[in-house]
Amino acid sequence: MKRMGLPVPPGFTLTTDLCTEYYRLHKQFPESYPDLLKQGIRAIEQETGAAFGSTEKPLLLSVRSGARVSMPGMMDTILNLGLNEQTTAALAKQSGDERFALDCHRRFVQMFGNVVLGIPHHLFEDQLDRVRDQQGVLEDKELTPASLRSVLAAYMAIVQDATGSPFPADVWTQLDLAIKAVFDSWQAPRAVTYRRLHDFPEDWGTAVNVQAMVFGNLGDDSATGVAFTRDPSTGANIFYGEYLENAQGEDVVAGIRTPHLLSLRQVEDNNASEDEAAMVLETRNPALYRQLMDLRTTLEQHYQDMQDIEFTVQSGKLYVLQTRSGKRTSRAAVAIAVAMVEEGICTVEQALLTIDPAQLDQLLHPILDPTVQLDVIGEGLPASPGAASGIIVTSADEAEMLEQQGKAVILFRPETSPEDIHGMHAARGIVTARGGMTSHAAVVARGMGRACICGMKNLQVDTESGRVIIGKTVLEAGELVTIDGSQGMLMRGEIPTIIPDLGGHFTTIMAWADQHRTVRLRANAETETDLKVANQFEAEGIGLARTEHMFFQADRINVVRKMILADSDAARASALAILLPHQQQDFETIFRHMEGLPVTVRLLDPPLHEFLPRGAAIAEIAPALDMTVPALTAAIDDLHEVNPMLGHRGCRLLLSYPAIVRMQVEAILRAMAVVHGELGTMPQVEIMIPLVADVEEFKQLQSVIAEVSQDIEGQLGMTLPHLVGTMIELPRAALTAAAIAQHAEFFSFGTNDLTQTTWGISRDDGARFLSQYVSRRLLSSDPFVTLDTEGVGRLIVWAVEAGRQTRADLKIGICGEHGGDPASVAFCVGQGLDYVSCSPYRLPIARLSAAQAAIRSKNPVATSPE
Amino acid sequence: MKRMGLPVPPGFTLTTDLCTEYYRLHKQFPESYPDLLKQGIRAIEQETGAAFGSTEKPLLLSVRSGARVSMPGMMDTILNLGLNEQTTAALAKQSGDERFALDCHRRFVQMFGNVVLGIPHHLFEDQLDRVRDQQGVLEDKELTPASLRSVLAAYMAIVQDATGSPFPADVWTQLDLAIKAVFDSWQAPRAVTYRRLHDFPEDWGTAVNVQAMVFGNLGDDSATGVAFTRDPSTGANIFYGEYLENAQGEDVVAGIRTPHLLSLRQVEDNNASEDEAAMVLETRNPALYRQLMDLRTTLEQHYQDMQDIEFTVQSGKLYVLQTRSGKRTSRAAVAIAVAMVEEGICTVEQALLTIDPAQLDQLLHPILDPTVQLDVIGEGLPASPGAASGIIVTSADEAEMLEQQGKAVILFRPETSPEDIHGMHAARGIVTARGGMTSHAAVVARGMGRACICGMKNLQVDTESGRVIIGKTVLEAGELVTIDGSQGMLMRGEIPTIIPDLGGHFTTIMAWADQHRTVRLRANAETETDLKVANQFEAEGIGLARTEHMFFQADRINVVRKMILADSDAARASALAILLPHQQQDFETIFRHMEGLPVTVRLLDPPLHEFLPRGAAIAEIAPALDMTVPALTAAIDDLHEVNPMLGHRGCRLLLSYPAIVRMQVEAILRAMAVVHGELGTMPQVEIMIPLVADVEEFKQLQSVIAEVSQDIEGQLGMTLPHLVGTMIELPRAALTAAAIAQHAEFFSFGTNDLTQTTWGISRDDGARFLSQYVSRRLLSSDPFVTLDTEGVGRLIVWAVEAGRQTRADLKIGICGEHGGDPASVAFCVGQGLDYVSCSPYRLPIARLSAAQAAIRSKNPVATSPE
Repeated sequence: MKRMGLPVPPGFTLTTDLCTEYYRLHKQFPESYPDLLKQGIRAIEQETGAAFGSTEKPLLLSVRSGARVSMPGMMDTILNLGLNEQTTAALAKQSGDERFALDCHRRFVQMFGNVVLGIPHHLFEDQLDRVRDQQGVLEDKELTPASLRSVLAAYMAIVQDATGSPFPADVWTQLDLAIKAVFDSWQAPRAVTYRRLHDFPEDWGTAVNVQAMVFGNLGDDSATGVAFTRDPSTGANIFYGEYLENAQGEDVVAGIRTPHLLSLRQVEDNNASEDEAAMVLETRNPALYRQLMDLRTTLEQHYQDMQDIEFTVQSGKLYVLQTRSGKRTSRAAVAIAVAMVEEGICTVEQALLTIDPAQLDQLLHPILDPTVQLDVIGEGLPASPGAASGIIVTSADEAEMLEQQGKAVILFRPETSPEDIHGMHAARGIVTARGGMTSHAAVVARGMGRACICGMKNLQVDTESGRVIIGKTVLEAGELVTIDGSQGMLMRGEIPTIIPDLGGHFTTIMAWADQHRTVRLRANAETETDLKVANQFEAEGIGLARTEHMFFQADRINVVRKMILADSDAARASALAILLPHQQQDFETIFRHMEGLPVTVRLLDPPLHEFLPRGAAIAEIAPALDMTVPALTAAIDDLHEVNPMLGHRGCRLLLSYPAIVRMQVEAILRAMAVVHGELGTMPQVEIMIPLVADVEEFKQLQSVIAEVSQDIEGQLGMTLPHLVGTMIELPRAALTAAAIAQHAEFFSFGTNDLTQTTWGISRDDGARFLSQYVSRRLLSSDPFVTLDTEGVGRLIVWAVEAGRQTRADLKIGICGEHGGDPASVAFCVGQGLDYVSCSPYRLPIARLSAAQAAIRSKNPVATSPE
Repeated sequence: MKRMGLPVPPGFTLTTDLCTEYYRLHKQFPESYPDLLKQGIRAIEQETGAAFGSTEKPLLLSVRSGARVSMPGMMDTILNLGLNEQTTAALAKQSGDERFALDCHRRFVQMFGNVVLGIPHHLFEDQLDRVRDQQGVLEDKELTPASLRSVLAAYMAIVQDATGSPFPADVWTQLDLAIKAVFDSWQAPRAVTYRRLHDFPEDWGTAVNVQAMVFGNLGDDSATGVAFTRDPSTGANIFYGEYLENAQGEDVVAGIRTPHLLSLRQVEDNNASEDEAAMVLETRNPALYRQLMDLRTTLEQHYQDMQDIEFTVQSGKLYVLQTRSGKRTSRAAVAIAVAMVEEGICTVEQALLTIDPAQLDQLLHPILDPTVQLDVIGEGLPASPGAASGIIVTSADEAEMLEQQGKAVILFRPETSPEDIHGMHAARGIVTARGGMTSHAAVVARGMGRACICGMKNLQVDTESGRVIIGKTVLEAGELVTIDGSQGMLMRGEIPTIIPDLGGHFTTIMAWADQHRTVRLRANAETETDLKVANQFEAEGIGLARTEHMFFQADRINVVRKMILADSDAARASALAILLPHQQQDFETIFRHMEGLPVTVRLLDPPLHEFLPRGAAIAEIAPALDMTVPALTAAIDDLHEVNPMLGHRGCRLLLSYPAIVRMQVEAILRAMAVVHGELGTMPQVEIMIPLVADVEEFKQLQSVIAEVSQDIEGQLGMTLPHLVGTMIELPRAALTAAAIAQHAEFFSFGTNDLTQTTWGISRDDGARFLSQYVSRRLLSSDPFVTLDTEGVGRLIVWAVEAGRQTRADLKIGICGEHGGDPASVAFCVGQGLDYVSCSPYRLPIARLSAAQAAIRSKNPVATSPE
């Protein structure tokens, strides 16, 4: 910004290289550091004419982090650095405002004490509250110099008490400690949590920006504010922000004072009160507003993206302190990307890269059914869109605990802080009593795609009892409520929801993505409902149709059980004969929906005991199976396995019961013939054999399929072309891919099981320690969410290479849940896979991720959205 | 042998290449085959002066398999080929012995009918029995030509009836079909089973030897016999064999007539009866005996190994039909190897290669406690050494079934055939009513290391009722008996056994092996008993001491349970404090036994629920844990896992409960100090972290170990040097070995778990389908027995390379059960591992395997023992 000629306070940057070096030296600075630091300060002194530590014209500094990616509220900032008794006196003299100087000193000691010295925030706040109460004032600016002096004295005592040493008066010591604190905060648990949740690597590190202070608290012609260049909720092209007069930056963000709006459009959109409207900057200070509007245009044109800026007005002069790509809702991201292209600010490729694919998930979240009459019991700011129901909790830990028990929760807090992040992540929705649209709660919730209402009126959150009180309405802990984050409304109970209309911007983005991506996208689906969603999101086929899902249907499960428990081949054959027409209908439904598109049908996979009743159900079901309870119990015990994941399932089961394969293949082929007859198009079928570890397993089943195929084709008098391939979901299949590819016509990586076996972790049991692992930094991300490229990925690379070497036209795809994860999709594109298959709701994410991967591979320096 | 100038009937060989080609062409011969065959026959005709199919001087052929490795009874042989009505008449005329000619024709039709045409043997035998009964004769040679003609007529009817066609009269058709039958028998289920049990690859194929017939059944100056050049049971340097006058080869092997002995030494060793002694060849025909003795020396000198030969005497002239390395007991193998070196017949290297390491296991089998008074109820030939107890079964299927249920069984059969192989493998011992020391049962049992008694006197096996009758003693099915295969004795009940004295030859072989092997050998052991065996077999350290084994001891298990169920850190700490001195003693014991040798201690590995009671035991144990039954049940349920193999265990558990690590490491270090004080030698300790999937897991635990180590070293005022390393037992650990080796000081491949996860097969559940897999030829060998070099091996190769590249002095070993498997040891030697660790009883096998691998790697053409 400095180079662009914008009004930035003078300063310098200690780069991320220094941060890396600092950690490499076990939190020590390199030898060259003191000199570099002095040079930097000297340059600021020259530009400002002030001197660091001077008792005449003291230079005050802000020390803030400058991480590669914005992490609001995560990294610590220290303002007003350089104050001690002498320099404060000098500042008072120089500004002619003793109250201002003392207020700065008070803020500095509090911030430094908390952030650098690790003294709990509330010790200072309690002290301040006490003095405010004594003085009978509400706002800090009403405090007299004498009161501020007594606050300061109390603060100094708190520091002495907590640390055993006096507050550091030497300004260079202050600077040194502050810089260290910024670097150290890179590894603070809350920063680590944030990176984990957003998948940012550890080794980026943070830079430190040291700048001359400008003061928004130098009187009523001073102010401070934050702004988004467009509405971060809707993406609308309006200037969107908040400011506070006579305040410093943290006052706006912390949500302690409720700030005022910048533009009249905001007033309109928020249905703001007349009092609020009177305070809008556009009206109150049109000249300043215009200056900001110019700044806004300049920055957007330059960075080719929507910006999140911080500004300060010192005695009428505007300074811009910081700019970065602004966080936004997915709705806004999509709208802004389209608008930026239309306005000629950026290219389609650039626009596509500004959208975080994972965030698109939000767009697909349900909204409240508009036909339902709502009984609204609480209202607040529509801080993050989406509707959510859950039970009331008032602490982050409780939210996390209940979520792990499978409960949907809504987290109510007076206000949120970085310490609440894990609970916000665990919650379906967040409600706060204080703070505005740019408060911590609002920014984080939008980033996470959680519904959020901020500043709910008359809300009291009693964290002791877990009770929530809105005016006269009392809601008990654990009571079920629904929130609408798009409208800022709270209702009792669970309100029905519907799938939102995705709108034109979304369609445009998807069309652009489809033009750019190089990989095909399929859906994992087999039910009518899922097939419809797959069609809606334009799946280019089905990558995984699980034939066993249909076995659980009420009208079939007992026939399936009879088949499993058959004590003779004849009994098994007769059960299979009953299942055949059902299975054929299943396949017809799939082939009809996917007219002409490829469909991968996986043959029966799970262990047989999964289909059998448990516990009390045994006695209920035995008669329907013509079995006695002891006989059924014995049969179930006989099928029991110690480690079913590693047991008699997949192709192992199919080899034991080839009659099942014959039935399923016959159903597939007959369905092909029927749908071909109806539509005139031959379904493109790929028959997939699961859990192959050795090529011999594949060969034997392939020959069973070939026999059935010859038989049915003969009966029907037509050829029914299909491929026969395999899941690569065991390490050994990947390691022996060359041998398997000699017979298999396609590979589909089943990354769920491949991750389980490569890591030796069962998803069913791993939750117990995996979440601990991620939070304790044992893992940078959950390998079941983001494909582990170092381990599982290496097997995939190996198998793709060996497979293609053996069979040049081998079709290769992925059908694990990783297919819906952006980083994993990028990996698959990089490996040249033919298609990625994911759950139908994640198709938009996969489409955009695939496009981004293709764009980045053409232009490796293309930046990430942030 | 032909080239050596030995008396071999003229013939030619269709090589294994032709067999491979035959299978490649889907059981068709290549175009060049008919001409080649004709050329071969013509050469025999020229040498013998007879003509194939001639009605004057007919050439008769034997067609037999010539596989790379002898598979007694496995491959089918056809004798007397070339006979039909006309050639039989010519043979009668030429030999002047019509009975002989008809006997040959009868034998040919029977053998061809069974082997080539697949007609059940018993159909022919029943017919023959009927005629014998009619004639009132016992031996075939007493049958008149007329009777033989009626037998032949009946045989022809049987063939017509069974196949719908007449018996092929054309001699070229006979030859063609016979050759095909030999090739086809390579894939007969019994051959496949044998290969599987002995780990011979499928692709070796078999050759076919076509030779002119010589006749042992041409009168009383003709004979046929088989012999071992040394005693295959003891290895004693005596000529050891059996012969039958006026008989053909199959009569001796099939065990239908009891053959006579060759040498007087045999008579002595067998305590043979006077009748038998009178028939010994050495006395009856000293000239022939001397000829055989010369042959014996020539063959041993040439092949540098003990030989198993077949010979025939036709009208007084000796022919040698076949020679091969003879099967032998491990005791014999060891004795012969030592003797051959002493006699200058072969080098130490060659001698070591003649011993099958897997067979050594036999030597280590227990023998009957000599102090126990035996009540012998049955006696027979000491066909295969060793003592065994088990319950009586009379069918191979039943033996296999009961063995799979964990029962020890002794298989009783009238005689055994290749169809019984699976039951013989499943049994601890085998007893037959018929057959001699070279019968099928004897040869196979020795090869498998099963105790065996052949030709038990007065034994009747009633396969219908499962009952066994010896004279007047009736033993019911399922009754417990003990057999001593070294002495040929059967006793009721279970007789106590002791470990045999291994003798000087064994020590010599082990010493030679140790001189040649390049890899170090350690034992997997932690109990006093196992440590003693490890010392006895000269383990060079402990490769795996499982610390949890000690947790199960009666005096500790409840403390362990209290530790697991502790609801506070304090409660856990107090339980651990009680365990500490016990663990310290455990380690002291290990370190004392392994004075100065390396000891790898694995920290706690299994999931905690393994230590908790189940079912009815819960109510019993709850009071001892100061818990109510519901509370204990709930705690156990809470620890339940769906797939414990992939659950909260190994380092995952240690990370959750670092207090366990601290206790175990403290116990190790304190034990080191104590033993150092006692012995003056510092124990060489390697602390091993189990189940690492990612280097971060390792790093965090390594730092816990470092803390404890610093603490204890400080307390004791001494340094206690130790390495910290990891198991490589998950695919991901192997794939990320480079990263792990940056921190780990050693790797130990835990091939049991590595096989489970690479294949996705739980050993607990895999039995259900793995045995099926091996028998259905889905797998050539069980990957839990012989290391899967294609899959698991690839991960090991990768990890060794990456590990050594990162850390040149990385110590690498293997501690899975594969450490005791010869092929797996050879693989480990090939990968340059520093040591192999196996169960203590398998150390001799590993020592010899390691030596053989080293010898073969120096001289890749060195042959296998067979």
